[in-house]
Amino acid sequence: MGEVRTDHLADERRRAEFDVEAMKIVWAGSKHAFDMSDRMGRIVASDPVFRKDNRAMLGRKELFKNTMRKAAHAWKRIIELRLSEEEASRFRAFVDEPAFTDLHWGMFVPAIKGQGTDEQQQKWLPLAYKMQIVGCYAQTELGHGSNVQGLETTATFDPKSDEFIINSPTLTSSKWWPGGLGKASTHAVVYARLILGNQFHGVHGFIVQLRSMDDHVPLPGITVGDIGMKFGNGAYNTMDNGVLRFNNVRIARNQMLMRVSQVTREGKFVQSNVPRQLVYGTMVYVRQTIVSDASIALSRAVCVATRYSAVRRQFGAMNGGPETQVIDYKTQQNRLFPLLASAYAFRFVGEWLKWLYTDVTQRLQAKDFSTLPEAHACTAGLKSLTTSITADGIEECRKLCGGHGYLFSSGLPELFAVYVPSCTYEGDNYVLQLQVARILMKTVSQLGSGVQPVGTTAYLGQVEHLMQCECSVQKAEDWLKPSIIQEAFEARATRMAVASAQKLSTMPNQEEGFAELSADLVEVAIAHCQLIIVSKFIEKLQQDVTGKGVRKQLEILCNVYALSLLHKHQGDFLATGSITPEQASLANDQLRHLYDQVRPNAVALVDAFNYTDHYLGSVLGRYDGNVYPKLYEEAWKDPLNDSDVPDGYNEYLRPMLKQQLHLARL
Amino acid sequence: MGEVRTDHLADERRRAEFDVEAMKIVWAGSKHAFDMSDRMGRIVASDPVFRKDNRAMLGRKELFKNTMRKAAHAWKRIIELRLSEEEASRFRAFVDEPAFTDLHWGMFVPAIKGQGTDEQQQKWLPLAYKMQIVGCYAQTELGHGSNVQGLETTATFDPKSDEFIINSPTLTSSKWWPGGLGKASTHAVVYARLILGNQFHGVHGFIVQLRSMDDHVPLPGITVGDIGMKFGNGAYNTMDNGVLRFNNVRIARNQMLMRVSQVTREGKFVQSNVPRQLVYGTMVYVRQTIVSDASIALSRAVCVATRYSAVRRQFGAMNGGPETQVIDYKTQQNRLFPLLASAYAFRFVGEWLKWLYTDVTQRLQAKDFSTLPEAHACTAGLKSLTTSITADGIEECRKLCGGHGYLFSSGLPELFAVYVPSCTYEGDNYVLQLQVARILMKTVSQLGSGVQPVGTTAYLGQVEHLMQCECSVQKAEDWLKPSIIQEAFEARATRMAVASAQKLSTMPNQEEGFAELSADLVEVAIAHCQLIIVSKFIEKLQQDVTGKGVRKQLEILCNVYALSLLHKHQGDFLATGSITPEQASLANDQLRHLYDQVRPNAVALVDAFNYTDHYLGSVLGRYDGNVYPKLYEEAWKDPLNDSDVPDGYNEYLRPMLKQQLHLARL
Repeated sequence: MGEVRTDHLADERRRAEFDVEAMKIVWAGSKHAFDMSDRMGRIVASDPVFRKDNRAMLGRKELFKNTMRKAAHAWKRIIELRLSEEEASRFRAFVDEPAFTDLHWGMFVPAIKGQGTDEQQQKWLPLAYKMQIVGCYAQTELGHGSNVQGLETTATFDPKSDEFIINSPTLTSSKWWPGGLGKASTHAVVYARLILGNQFHGVHGFIVQLRSMDDHVPLPGITVGDIGMKFGNGAYNTMDNGVLRFNNVRIARNQMLMRVSQVTREGKFVQSNVPRQLVYGTMVYVRQTIVSDASIALSRAVCVATRYSAVRRQFGAMNGGPETQVIDYKTQQNRLFPLLASAYAFRFVGEWLKWLYTDVTQRLQAKDFSTLPEAHACTAGLKSLTTSITADGIEECRKLCGGHGYLFSSGLPELFAVYVPSCTYEGDNYVLQLQVARILMKTVSQLGSGVQPVGTTAYLGQVEHLMQCECSVQKAEDWLKPSIIQEAFEARATRMAVASAQKLSTMPNQEEGFAELSADLVEVAIAHCQLIIVSKFIEKLQQDVTGKGVRKQLEILCNVYALSLLHKHQGDFLATGSITPEQASLANDQLRHLYDQVRPNAVALVDAFNYTDHYLGSVLGRYDGNVYPKLYEEAWKDPLNDSDVPDGYNEYLRPMLKQQLHLARL
Repeated sequence: MGEVRTDHLADERRRAEFDVEAMKIVWAGSKHAFDMSDRMGRIVASDPVFRKDNRAMLGRKELFKNTMRKAAHAWKRIIELRLSEEEASRFRAFVDEPAFTDLHWGMFVPAIKGQGTDEQQQKWLPLAYKMQIVGCYAQTELGHGSNVQGLETTATFDPKSDEFIINSPTLTSSKWWPGGLGKASTHAVVYARLILGNQFHGVHGFIVQLRSMDDHVPLPGITVGDIGMKFGNGAYNTMDNGVLRFNNVRIARNQMLMRVSQVTREGKFVQSNVPRQLVYGTMVYVRQTIVSDASIALSRAVCVATRYSAVRRQFGAMNGGPETQVIDYKTQQNRLFPLLASAYAFRFVGEWLKWLYTDVTQRLQAKDFSTLPEAHACTAGLKSLTTSITADGIEECRKLCGGHGYLFSSGLPELFAVYVPSCTYEGDNYVLQLQVARILMKTVSQLGSGVQPVGTTAYLGQVEHLMQCECSVQKAEDWLKPSIIQEAFEARATRMAVASAQKLSTMPNQEEGFAELSADLVEVAIAHCQLIIVSKFIEKLQQDVTGKGVRKQLEILCNVYALSLLHKHQGDFLATGSITPEQASLANDQLRHLYDQVRPNAVALVDAFNYTDHYLGSVLGRYDGNVYPKLYEEAWKDPLNDSDVPDGYNEYLRPMLKQQLHLARL
């Protein structure tokens, strides 16, 4: 943001009706979080090693080499600047390029921490913390993703040598996808089926060294490589997602992660008294960070689309005056503003999930597992919902930028390609919603049996009221009341859940019935998750919010979020009789009025995300709005423009133009 | 398809309940069309010059050079094989790589044909037909896309020299996006504001030579280049979308395309008696081809996802048996089968649009303009709807392939990146739906005034019946009756249109009211367009359809298409009282039963598209289903796998691992 000269968006910024600096702190979560994030963002942005604009021009090898350079440089800076763990993590996030280090810090280290014994942690963690070893997380196989229990890699205990022998018995058992595995990692936590004698004992994690610490060459028995190009240009192609096969690779017995289960020297399988539920605690943690990341990815796209929509003008010139800013068109607002509101909504639900994780952890330590299934399901559902909406939302923002959104320099294709795997990894989004549905069906079936629904399903305790309540909206403004919105969403979610449970109960076989109705059950789960997000947004407004006009803006966004959802899913609300067609129409009228209130604040609301131009990586989303000259400038950097006459003209184009193709060798 | 050994999908194919060969002909449109297309597909597939699997590994220059090679080779083959225009066009389509020749044949030649005088056609067309010149279509500018009347490039007539002087007066007037412009084209049809004396006379087309025919160097006064990388890897990066600026470029007066308007030697502006509506005829033509292409792109994605869903197994193993094919999951079916049905639906509405174009052309020749506005709007609406659904549908198919869909070798990322611009070019999809809404509002406002609605709006003539009719569905199977489906869609579209028209009529200013309600009006337009597609599918079933079981399959697909839409938009149907909540629920039950009927035929239904493995370009969609070994094989081709130890290990990774980063130069 340093060298701003003319601010083409200054008028927009002047129109804002709230204190942007205060909103920045609300968005960041606290003054401390803001200061830290702001500082990290600036350090990364000002460092030429971290430039991103050349990614599209690098071949695969150069791209990966550049990633190693960035990772090494980032690590060097982190050490030099003596960054805390929290700061280092933000620093890496601002580097904004998928790298093997993500898996090292995000999966390898936590796996050892969560599943290793104290002894194992003492051995491996110091090496990992200093990056003397680089690790990855080798779970997914060519043939198995979601079904972890179906993994085929084997770890057979050999009592003679006190070792495990790791093998890939089939082609489909090849490890496939782990990030950082292909080229960078020296070690991996490998998930394999434990075999003792002739008996399987489930899937466990094993620390396996993959490459020589002398020269990085794969160790005997190990075949390892990169799985090839992925979606997009730069995107995840900076990551060495890998393939890995084992041919009788031997590791010491104490390299099985043994916090939960052990294999004794005699080859006996023993369960420790550490609760297995810990695994779910870890999943809550990982998915909670994914929800947080969703709000970041969506807000980046919305920031670009909002600024560009204020710069771009098309049609509507009166008497030779300027054309209309496209952000003034209601169709543009109707697509953009709900996404802006969603970015804020996801931010706040992400914050709440952080609290939930802490709560779950404390309960686990106290051996209280009562809230775990609900917390686990709720995190799964929110991961699913926020990543799906974010992926689609980024693409919608790209389309909102018209043709220019299709350029690499708009940053949006890259953001999309790098984001979409979130819908698949850490649980396929449909599989996850079915887990939510399962909890909901169980909760509904237990209503009246004295079991009180907990956590985010608590509203189902009021099933009698919610099955018959009538929405009291009579005029458009009634839809601004949080209690009315909340009840409408609760009624819709309850009635959908109860209807499905009833249908399910008429089925002869519950499992088959669940499968048969699964498409409807996904909709039930989504209704529940939307309710959670709406509720948490409303709760946020009940907290202390400071800064001129800030609360007012958040109220508007909360209403935009809820009413745009209500309109999009009005089929649910109407089919369940939760609202009437007239009330649905009034909600839509109110939504239009809300757009008028968002409009003057839109640019300031995305400024509040406090993203540097480096992080946004978008010519269209530049802070200063100076879009066209920069687009023009960027174009000439393409290698195709190195010469006026393209390579290949003489061989291919000229013979065609000169009618001499029959003589040419093609 | 040549070297099939084991067919992993043989069981699936055996289960099909219809004659696939007969369906192939229905899909192709005729026996002739099938034979021709089949032949072209095979020729392209067997020619090594047309390989596509290496696109992701080529840098931009090599990629473009390769495109020129393919274009030259294709042209050579077209001449050698003495292909007809129809065959040549199919041949180019199967090469399946955006190239400058697309614009030459698809825009440059038609522009001259449509807007040039007989004399101009005689001069320029033979050169273009032999490819002695290569042309493109330079309309869009950096600052203007949708608003063609806002273009800023000027063409000023100089009576002294009898020439036009072409200028780019501003940065935003730079031509920007035209395909083929950047590097390949020697000529362009340039759209510019005509200036005679000091008067503007609207935007017209001019033939401008850009490059020397001797050495391909840009001519004096012309700045031309490529606009840089776009979405995706290969995708549209094989195309030299260009930027172009003019500095006092002079062209002869007779290079203005003068079929509709002329400038005389004296500099007078004259309108010919050729109807201006011809332009709309051309737009109907171009958009009709886009609808056709939508069915092709969507069917490719559906073909990949369907085959892979039959190969992929996950969960549900009983007693050590194989796991469940993912295509057997209802959630998978609920996402995939409506897209399969949509591919067929789009195919048939595309066929009908071809007929509509012929009809419009004949009427234009007879100076009958009565159906033109409706035909124009309907084509615009169908372009918008089919491209939006197709773009989203391709991405959905990619997600349906789980993690592996994210690999370049799945073909789906490439298909998506190359397809999405369809939503923006030739009319932004939202702008187009507003054109449809405009016609609908006008038609509704004229009801009762004696003006009979024509073409696809004819149903509005029965407004009285449709406003009050009640859906007679009492049990799920009632939803199988075409008349019931048709009436429900007509009632919904009519009631939404009438409600919006009424709301509009209460607004003080019609234009402002239209803008205010535009988000709702887009929904009205979409309801109308969905009705058209449903109607044309139903009409198709009333035609002569031969082949064992073929009609039955089409009936099932038609019902899946209609009922899945009805479910997705049940808010519309319920809000307008077109159906009751109970009927909506019955429709959903019926839809589930229909999925059971699609299931055994799914693979055969995508085989009927008759795509070669070359054209599909997807390891996951291979005809023989031999997915895993081929995925594994593909991975090792990545340049990163050239060596075990990656380039950059010594510079970046090793110093990190050896704790010597402080000494390293990064």
